[in-house]
Formats: sequence, C-alpha cells, structure tokens
Amino acid sequence: MSVAHNLSASISSSSSAFLVPTDFNSTTFRPRNVPVPAKSFRICKCVAAPQEQKTAYKTKVSRNENMAKLQAGYLFPEVARRRAAHLQKYPDAKVISLGIGDTTEPIPEVITSAMANRSHALSTLEGYSGYGAEQGEKALRAAIASTFYKNFGIEDDDIFVSDGAKCDISRLQVMFGSNVTMAVQDPSYPAYVDSSVILGQTGLFQKDVEKYGKIEYMRCTPENGFFPHLSTVQRTDIIFFCSPNNPTGAAATREQLTQLVQFAKDNGTIIVYDSAYALYMSDDNPRSIFEIPGAKEVAIETSSFSKYAGFTGVRLGWTVVPKQLLFADGFPVAKDFNRIVSTCFNGASNIAQAGALACLSPDGLKAVYEVIGFYKENTKIIVDTFNSLGFKVYGGKNGPYVWVHFPGRSSWEVFSEILEKTHVVTTPGSGFGPGGEGFVRVSAFGHRENILEACRRFRELYR
Amino acid sequence: MSVAHNLSASISSSSSAFLVPTDFNSTTFRPRNVPVPAKSFRICKCVAAPQEQKTAYKTKVSRNENMAKLQAGYLFPEVARRRAAHLQKYPDAKVISLGIGDTTEPIPEVITSAMANRSHALSTLEGYSGYGAEQGEKALRAAIASTFYKNFGIEDDDIFVSDGAKCDISRLQVMFGSNVTMAVQDPSYPAYVDSSVILGQTGLFQKDVEKYGKIEYMRCTPENGFFPHLSTVQRTDIIFFCSPNNPTGAAATREQLTQLVQFAKDNGTIIVYDSAYALYMSDDNPRSIFEIPGAKEVAIETSSFSKYAGFTGVRLGWTVVPKQLLFADGFPVAKDFNRIVSTCFNGASNIAQAGALACLSPDGLKAVYEVIGFYKENTKIIVDTFNSLGFKVYGGKNGPYVWVHFPGRSSWEVFSEILEKTHVVTTPGSGFGPGGEGFVRVSAFGHRENILEACRRFRELYR
Repeated sequence: MSVAHNLSASISSSSSAFLVPTDFNSTTFRPRNVPVPAKSFRICKCVAAPQEQKTAYKTKVSRNENMAKLQAGYLFPEVARRRAAHLQKYPDAKVISLGIGDTTEPIPEVITSAMANRSHALSTLEGYSGYGAEQGEKALRAAIASTFYKNFGIEDDDIFVSDGAKCDISRLQVMFGSNVTMAVQDPSYPAYVDSSVILGQTGLFQKDVEKYGKIEYMRCTPENGFFPHLSTVQRTDIIFFCSPNNPTGAAATREQLTQLVQFAKDNGTIIVYDSAYALYMSDDNPRSIFEIPGAKEVAIETSSFSKYAGFTGVRLGWTVVPKQLLFADGFPVAKDFNRIVSTCFNGASNIAQAGALACLSPDGLKAVYEVIGFYKENTKIIVDTFNSLGFKVYGGKNGPYVWVHFPGRSSWEVFSEILEKTHVVTTPGSGFGPGGEGFVRVSAFGHRENILEACRRFRELYR
Repeated sequence: MSVAHNLSASISSSSSAFLVPTDFNSTTFRPRNVPVPAKSFRICKCVAAPQEQKTAYKTKVSRNENMAKLQAGYLFPEVARRRAAHLQKYPDAKVISLGIGDTTEPIPEVITSAMANRSHALSTLEGYSGYGAEQGEKALRAAIASTFYKNFGIEDDDIFVSDGAKCDISRLQVMFGSNVTMAVQDPSYPAYVDSSVILGQTGLFQKDVEKYGKIEYMRCTPENGFFPHLSTVQRTDIIFFCSPNNPTGAAATREQLTQLVQFAKDNGTIIVYDSAYALYMSDDNPRSIFEIPGAKEVAIETSSFSKYAGFTGVRLGWTVVPKQLLFADGFPVAKDFNRIVSTCFNGASNIAQAGALACLSPDGLKAVYEVIGFYKENTKIIVDTFNSLGFKVYGGKNGPYVWVHFPGRSSWEVFSEILEKTHVVTTPGSGFGPGGEGFVRVSAFGHRENILEACRRFRELYR
C-alpha cells in the first residue's frame, strides 16, 4: 500500500497521522542515522489539503524513553528497504539477495510431511490438540536434549521450546529486566543490543563511538582471531556470545570457550550463548557451550531450526536454561524463565513442533545435514571468489556467512556500491556494531545459480 | 519427569540446584500465596546425600525485582497443577476440564487442508518461503482488515499479525515500558496484570487487598452490570479492557464503549481492547472498539483465532494499532510497535498464517461460525444447569464463559469442592482479581458429552 493511498484514506478519517513529520510506513521505517544514498528512490511527500491542517489528537501517554534511544530501524528491515528502493530504481534488475540470512532451499519432505500430517490430524477428534505446554511438547524437549546435549547433563525439562531464538532473546531480556549490565561481541547480531536498549539496560547512543552507553562491546576482529581479549573486558551481568558467529562466521575453540566460562565464573556473569549455526561447524569446536565443564552454572543457550531446516518462516527454536544456573540470591533462573514463557508466551505452534520432531528423526537429521551441506558449498564458492579477487575473507568455514574486509571504507558505502553495480544485496558490517565497520557480510543462503551469478558479478566489479 | 529423577540426575553433576529450598519443577511451580488443599498430593522431599551439601555456585546477577513481585504461578498452570495432583490422588477418576478455556473441537477441514497444503508447498521450490514480514503476510493483513474492520477506517497496515493475543499483550507492555500506569477490569484475564508486574509498572503486592500497588482495579460486578463506574476510576496511561469479558462473559454495550472512549479521550489514555471473544456475541453490541467513533485515536485492539477456529495450539492472533494513535509527543504508537515486532519477534508461523487466511474465506468463516455455535450451545447447557440449581449465573450469552456466584464463599474453596466431589476442573474467580472472589468460571469449551456429564455431576452436588 503506497503512502499516497494511505494519505487519501486518512483524509476521509477524523485525524491525519501524516501531519506527523515522519516517513511512516508500517513495514519499513526510515532510521535516523543511516546515510541516505544520494540517488535513492524517495516517495514524493504529499502536502495535506488545508482542511487537514488541524492538530491531530494526542494521548497523554509518554513514549517509552528507551524506544526513543534506538538509533535506526532494525538492521534487516532497513536492508530490505534499500533493496525495495533499488528495485524501484531498476525495475528490471535481477536482484540477488545475500543480505538477511534467509534460507532459500525447500524443506525436506520428511519434515513437511510431518507438518502436513499434524495439520490434517487437527481436524480429527483423536488428533486435535489445543493449548500445549508453554515450554513445548515433551517428546520434542526430550528429542532436543538427546540430539544436541547428550552427555552434557542437560535434562529434558531444561529445554524451553519456542517460536525462535530471536524471540527468546527478548524474553530473556524481559526476565533480566532493566538493572543488568550486558556485554556483546562487536560485531554481533543486532537483536542483543536492540533488545537491551528497549528493556532500558543501556544509556544513550553515543554518536562519536557508535555505541550505546553501559554496554560493553567486546571487539572481535582479525587481530584477535575474533575472540575478545577477556583481560580487557569489564565485568557485566550478562554476556551475549554467538558461536559460530553471526556476522563474522568465526567459531570459538574449546580453549577459548573454556576461558569464557572461567571468566563468567570469576565474575558471576551469565552467558547467553547463541548456537544457532552450530551444525555449520567444520572444525572440531564445541557445538554447545554445555560441552565446557561448569557451563551449566553460568550459561543459557539459545538455538533454532531456522538455519538447519529452513524454518525461518515456520518458526521454531529453543532455549536451554539449566536448573543449576542461579541468581545471586540462589533463585533458579529457569524458574523465572518458566514464569516468563507461561505469562508472555503460549507455546510454539503445534504444527511447527511436529516439524521439529521430524527434523530430529534419523531421516530428518540426514535431510537436515544435506541442506546444511548445500549451503556450505555455497559458502565455499563465495569465499573462493573473494579470495581470488585478493580480498581478505573471514568466516565461511564454520558458519554460513562470509565476512569480507574492505579496509578503510565505510560498510554502507560498500553495500551501496555492490548493490548499485551488481544488484546484489549484502549486509553492511557496521550494522552489527562499530567493530564491523569496513566489512560486508555475504550470506551463503541462496539458490546455487544465484550464488554463482552473484560471484560472477562480484568478479566483474572487483577484478 | 519426577523430582526424584531430577535429583538423581543432579547428584551426578557438579552442583545441586536442589539445595535451593523450592519445589522446582519446570512445568509447574508452586506459587506462594495459594492455599494448599489439605489433602493434596505432595511429592516427597528427598534429602540430598551429605556429599551434596556444599554450597551451590551462584552467579552475581541480581534477580529482577519485578519477577520477585509476582505472587503466584500464572493462574492456568496452577490450575493445571491442581488437576494433575487430583489425578494422582484419584488415578481412575474421569476428570473433565472446564478450567482453562481450551478449545476441544477439531479444526474444520477447510482450514487444516490449507495448512497441510502450505506445509507440503514448503518442500517445493515454488512454494518455499523463508522469513516473512514480521507484521504478517499482506494477504492475511488485508483479509483481517476487511473481515473484522470493514467501514471502521482500519487499514491493512494497521494490522500486526502475531502468534497470539497473549504474546502481543506482553509485546505491548514491552513497548510501553516501566513508566506507564495501568487500569484493568477486576476481574480480568491475568496476563494483563502479570505482564505489567514483570515490566515494572506496578508496586508490590498488597496482601490485605489482594492488589498490586499502582494498578487501578476497575471493579466489575453484578451491581454495576460488569461495567466500571468510570467516574470513580482514577486516570491511568493504559486501560486494558476485554469485551466480551474473560472471565465474566459480560459484553459492553455501544453506549458503555462510547463512554469508555470518551473517558480515554478526556484523560489522554490508551485503551488496549481485547476482543478475542467478539464472535461469541449474541447481543447487538460492538464487536470491535473501532466501531466507536474516535476510538482510533485512543485504542489498540488485540484478538486471536484461538477461540474462533480452535487455534489455541496453532497460534495465530493479531493486534490493530491505528496510525492515528499518538503518544503525548505526537510520535505514532504504531511506529514503536512496529519496531518491537521487528526486534523482539520474527513473524507468526507461515503455516498458521495460511490457516488463518483459510478461516477468513467464505467456507472457512462458515465453518468457524459452526464451531462457535457449538460452543454457544454448550454455554447454554451450563447456564441452564446452574440456573436450575438456583445459582446466580452471569455471562454465557455473549461469551464462552459462565460466571457462577457462590456468595460468601472463597473461590479456591469452591474450586476444590467441585474438583474433589465431581472431578470437574473449573477456574477460581479470585484468580482473575479480588473482584472475582466468590465466583467460579466454568468454561464452555468441551466435547458435548463432557459438558452434559459435568452438568449431571453439578446437579448431583448442588441439588
């Protein structure tokens, strides 16, 4: 629906939100601190007719000041907006999206059949089910525990099934509340920082350093092998740590994770470990933080079927909160998280849970590994391409993201250059934090012909 | 999984959470202020072996003080816990659950077929889709707008599709933040109050009045026809208002809702209107707050397919945030809500969305109304039963809940009496707020033979 359409509709209503001086479009809001490409497509601003100039009614509810701290639209909708604007400018361009890490390959039939069967069953008396446990179906919790955490001492009831890791990150933040401090890898998946801002854990955005106050940014660069110098990291209550990392693709080694757990233990810190890409690992690094002895006392782990089984749209993830993890007063963290999922959530879709259970069957797992193998081949093609062009390339081996270095250049500038000249959408590294400046993330999620074509265009642009 | 099992497992791990003096079980926590039935089943408390007596490791992260304010387990898990304990005590009892409002009838095939088809399509190149818009698929947003809000000036992009109204209530609370004040109907669906407590909007629980500080409880009793005396209601930033009401079943009239909107307008208040039971209405009352002129400037509406199409387990709801609704500084509320759904959520399951779209097709709607009609017949059976026994009964006509008055008695006591003597699970009215004391809510969601059998047992107990 175009803005022009919105405006004509609002003219017939009793007030006009378009007197508010913002580019308001419910899907893609323009952020305030992202440079506008000089030639980008802009929808013309219509001037409201004179009879509309009366002041719009405002409630007396103050806007949440934490929301106002957010500096830009969430990264990926902004990338999508740039893509849409590019398509408006070049309607005939064959745009290839290697930006948002969105899966493209069909879900293996053994999994979709299970979901279809569950759907059909819901129209039978025997197969119908209403509200499930907010924590997930027992069989699925058990299958997740035995598939991913066997021998690590994680029990079925430590697993909380959800509609995705991103959603769980916010629920964890709601549980922690406003008074905790947090650290993130820099760069990192923006949901950690943004949810922290929303919950009021941070100070204002400091434009000079491109950081929010009170967040500890743990620099992860080629210089330190993408693992933070923990000796220089200030103590925080929470550490968000993603390995294999989004966006850098770097995976922490067993030694590094052992250091991290020890660091958390020394500081009484809780690690929120995001292992959403664990099955992409080629090296022999831990696939779960719970492989590290003692981690159950300091760590939560969140993960997802999104990148394993193409469930980005189906929505199914999980979070592990071991009962050994205690707040300072001895209260079990899992007990509060259970209260959060019971109060703020109502369980993942039963159909999606049936799909997840099928993923963990022998045939399902085999199919899942095939899809992952396909994306890993894509990754290799992209890595080889940039390597052959003389770029320093990171990631790729243990995760589905390739982290390409453009030293001395602005990420958004490179993003725009690539988009303008090759019609390929990437993600600007600085969108993941100031440590990502000078990098661009290329996602390996795509049909093979698109990956090959994108690489052909990259070679043409940068040869 | 039993506590005993948990204990044996934890003995082999490096620490024991069971040194913490709580009945910790991830599914059903014992709340602290709910009286324990004298004869209720208790799992025996094992004493940890001596070598386990070392102090468990505790992090230095302070527990969120708002979580600590919560007085009991979320109501419905507590009811489920009582049900489970009853079943342990009477393993052969044929327990009938008219407690949590959980749908029991199969989903019409026209809807499940659409979900099965979407599932199958996900394993094809043409039918696969990954991340969808966080706000929902365009076709579904359009169908919701035209089915439920035609002629009310609600546009497609005012609709935010979600995984359920309960989840949206929490997301709205996250958006509002800690500094707003709120009012609720008393009694009301406990998710409003509990999410408000979690977000830090309230004071401590005041045991003498059974209320949280800083929440305005708007008494809704037979004396005021279940509509609050607005002249005695203190101004708050937010008013949660559910009509047809859960638990009382009362529906506000057009005149009452016009008063409510005017009250909000005078006070600059935002109404969060929960219309999850709107299609159960028999009387000619508004089915949406947006039927009231001017409501778009003061109201949000949240609703769900749960009780319309048996989607309690499928998970699909929506929230309407009109672009005319502005914070005090003129900032559109929808813009912040869009940021919340983009950051803290990732869209509802695409399969569930396909089901919702099918619900709104001509055949789907017809089937939905048939299911609703069935539950309405159940309601009448329950109402007639309690009426014939001489009870004062409310609700039932416009909602799927029957609100039975037991003057002078404690709700939990009546709940226990009914459970003990009839093996029927109901919900104690006081679980919905102090205004619900002396009432019991009987849900009309059930197979017909169960409803008839429950009513037979009620007649036996109370004749």
